[in-house]
Amino acid sequence: MIQDLGAHTAARVEFGETLYKQLALRISELIEHGTLRAGERVPSVRKCSQQQNVSVATVMQAYRLLEDRGVIEARPQSGYYVRARRWSPPPEPEKSRPALRPVNVQVSDLILQVVKAGRDPKLVRLGATLPSPELFPIKALSRTMASVARRMPLAAHAYEVPPGNRALRVQVARRAMEAGCTLAPDDIITTVGATEAINLCLRAVARPGDVIAIESPTFFNILQIIESLGMRVCEIPTYPRHGICLNELEERLNCCRIKACVFMLNYSNPLGSCMPDEKKKKLVEILASRQIPLIEDDIYGNLTFGATRPKAAKAFDKEGWVMLCDSFTKTLSPGSRVGWVAPGRFKARVEFLKFVNTSATASLPQMAIAEFLQNGGYDHHLRKIRRQYAAQMQQMSEAITRHFPAGTKLTRPSGGMCLWVELPPHVKALALYHQAMASGISIAPGPIFSAKQKYERFIRINCGNPWSDTIENAIHRLGAMAGSSGNGEHGARK
Amino acid sequence: MIQDLGAHTAARVEFGETLYKQLALRISELIEHGTLRAGERVPSVRKCSQQQNVSVATVMQAYRLLEDRGVIEARPQSGYYVRARRWSPPPEPEKSRPALRPVNVQVSDLILQVVKAGRDPKLVRLGATLPSPELFPIKALSRTMASVARRMPLAAHAYEVPPGNRALRVQVARRAMEAGCTLAPDDIITTVGATEAINLCLRAVARPGDVIAIESPTFFNILQIIESLGMRVCEIPTYPRHGICLNELEERLNCCRIKACVFMLNYSNPLGSCMPDEKKKKLVEILASRQIPLIEDDIYGNLTFGATRPKAAKAFDKEGWVMLCDSFTKTLSPGSRVGWVAPGRFKARVEFLKFVNTSATASLPQMAIAEFLQNGGYDHHLRKIRRQYAAQMQQMSEAITRHFPAGTKLTRPSGGMCLWVELPPHVKALALYHQAMASGISIAPGPIFSAKQKYERFIRINCGNPWSDTIENAIHRLGAMAGSSGNGEHGARK
Repeated sequence: MIQDLGAHTAARVEFGETLYKQLALRISELIEHGTLRAGERVPSVRKCSQQQNVSVATVMQAYRLLEDRGVIEARPQSGYYVRARRWSPPPEPEKSRPALRPVNVQVSDLILQVVKAGRDPKLVRLGATLPSPELFPIKALSRTMASVARRMPLAAHAYEVPPGNRALRVQVARRAMEAGCTLAPDDIITTVGATEAINLCLRAVARPGDVIAIESPTFFNILQIIESLGMRVCEIPTYPRHGICLNELEERLNCCRIKACVFMLNYSNPLGSCMPDEKKKKLVEILASRQIPLIEDDIYGNLTFGATRPKAAKAFDKEGWVMLCDSFTKTLSPGSRVGWVAPGRFKARVEFLKFVNTSATASLPQMAIAEFLQNGGYDHHLRKIRRQYAAQMQQMSEAITRHFPAGTKLTRPSGGMCLWVELPPHVKALALYHQAMASGISIAPGPIFSAKQKYERFIRINCGNPWSDTIENAIHRLGAMAGSSGNGEHGARK
Repeated sequence: MIQDLGAHTAARVEFGETLYKQLALRISELIEHGTLRAGERVPSVRKCSQQQNVSVATVMQAYRLLEDRGVIEARPQSGYYVRARRWSPPPEPEKSRPALRPVNVQVSDLILQVVKAGRDPKLVRLGATLPSPELFPIKALSRTMASVARRMPLAAHAYEVPPGNRALRVQVARRAMEAGCTLAPDDIITTVGATEAINLCLRAVARPGDVIAIESPTFFNILQIIESLGMRVCEIPTYPRHGICLNELEERLNCCRIKACVFMLNYSNPLGSCMPDEKKKKLVEILASRQIPLIEDDIYGNLTFGATRPKAAKAFDKEGWVMLCDSFTKTLSPGSRVGWVAPGRFKARVEFLKFVNTSATASLPQMAIAEFLQNGGYDHHLRKIRRQYAAQMQQMSEAITRHFPAGTKLTRPSGGMCLWVELPPHVKALALYHQAMASGISIAPGPIFSAKQKYERFIRINCGNPWSDTIENAIHRLGAMAGSSGNGEHGARK
């Protein structure tokens, strides 16, 4: 599915306005329209200079740009040729092998740095999974907010006591049908993002000292939450395509007194794995038979690259053991902080904890999002950003393939917005992180995704930004740094 | 100070539009302007009927209304007279006497009922301390919100990673000067209301099982937070005027291994006590010398009835042991959920926990409140609501004095919005609560303000609503219920 989206199309948009970029754009259009085909020779530099009435230097710049983008390739003593569109992806990382026993969580100090770097305009932001603002319907949603504030000032300033804004809960319940879930508005509690939802779920079902099963690697925010609540983790081995290994999960359930699970089953962060729906069904059955709650973080479920989104595990939940957490942070508005939870059999306790933790979720953002969902702008928007994210991830994957040293491995997600890169032996993610930051590029180093700061040879790359020269260049430099680093120090995957 | 605000002035506004109410308004104006003075006889019913060209029945209705409001009084066989403006308040409750030892918190199931009843339009809302929407600058603030959403759509939808919106932190730091605090914007973290701020502070300085000192009685939300975190409490005896007894606090500090204090020093909820600034200084010194953090909840500090607001304990904090929590919930907009904390020496940990708990506070409400504060509407608004709350509390105090049975005791707060009523022996707050709810009146029963559900003979009355016939009538009925209840059951204060 990914391969169908050629790098050429999306690259067009970003060539910009200078002369050599305009020339590069024209040539890439010729290739796109089939005037020039894969394997064919493009006009020589001199000929192109005459045809287009531009200097030889300009043509050279344009050809180098197209070469960098992987559109054409130089063959020694023969000139430039159109590259084959098929992209040969590097191998994928293997199943992860975390510790067998429960461990205390050590949270890395780097996490807040990585998150804050996600908003620093001076950096090329490949660290935090913050989508570019252009990928949100900012103007339409702001108009809705302004309009709601004017039309319903009383409601906009009144408390929305838990379970929260009813109009929003109605919309959430309707949309949950697409994830295969049958939810009533009263099954849902609105929260301050999925982050608060996960906090509340964990507090509702576990106590300090209890062991929580998580994917390995897992989103660092989940590690932080578990650490802050004084709980411990049992990291479950995870396949980069299909998520956690159910056999190994069962083995650990047999020996570790696991109190709850926090899993991101659709386009997990950082792996991008998506558990097939049949496997989700099995997972839900395994956990329900042992009466273990599954806290499901589904914030990327809507960002599928396919035609229909995968189901949530909640779709297979017959006895209320699945606590589904979601938010509009990755699709509509990070700053509105509107999320929700369908906590199944734990609803009363979660609602109580919501009241105790923040009293209520801000009213105006809930009202505005409810209205936006109701008025139908959301589906159109989702279709648009799914295409966009698919293209961005493809471009990023190809660029990493081009620029990173041999031995690099790469995930192949079918949704979401992050790539998990395994660096060749000898290359240390933390060293690369510091070198990259000094060079104006933020990345997320592997150790922040593990309770014991493993994944020393991995980095996560954010694909949330539209492709640009700046990003191409940053990946180029990052690849060069990775290629030249690791002076003899042997980094084994732990 | 309170006594200077006559009931007459504020009563004017609320007489309404029907004929007898218009007549009552005219007469109350005559009294207010001095045409009729205290102790003077008002025109007889017949004479007034002729003068005003209204029916005798209308005059009777008007006089009865004025009598109910305490403006005039009937003297047998003599007619109606203007009442003396001096009001004789009932005695105050005594210092509280909670248990000496730390206890686990039992949170009452009634709390959420009381809170939700605060928004039920079918009830007379004397339970939750939710101010009436008319007392917020709803329109002006909604205009600001709409305007910010239009002018700064990108920022309105971007994350405000902790410590939160800088423009708001600048405004908060400036305003903190009025509470005697010298704060820099970087000392402050914005939160989802003061509720989240208190949660974060407690989690930053204490662990499950630790003992937290609280005022007795205390705001039920603080009890809920402590219970939800698995901590225990030591309740400190408290004077209804000047807050906790420092000697008894020191005694308990000597024997109880108290890990932190959560106090509401200015216009505490439910007592309305305000600790004199000199006593605050002493309190801060006592706690700093023992390295015990003071979590100060100052949400009512701005709602003083006097000319200048009392200081925060934070004003006397030299070593960073005071963690000041506040919000705009009681003065600007409950639904915006914008609060803040200045956590002193614990700033890094609180900022981390803020990120972990909710990632960020919603952006647009922060931006709108910052702009509203900057543009100067806030001071004018504060002056207005201070007068209004003072008048409302005076009217409520007088109405309770008129309608409640002999033996009732009443606090005399100089700020805030709640009255703490001690019922006569034999009257049980929970029975009265259920009777009142059945009769369409919500009140807050005393037991929800104590870790062990004491204060069985107390109720808290919300003075957040402008005075009206409905409220007058509700207090009348409540007083009658209290007068007729308690059939022989002996209720001693525990």
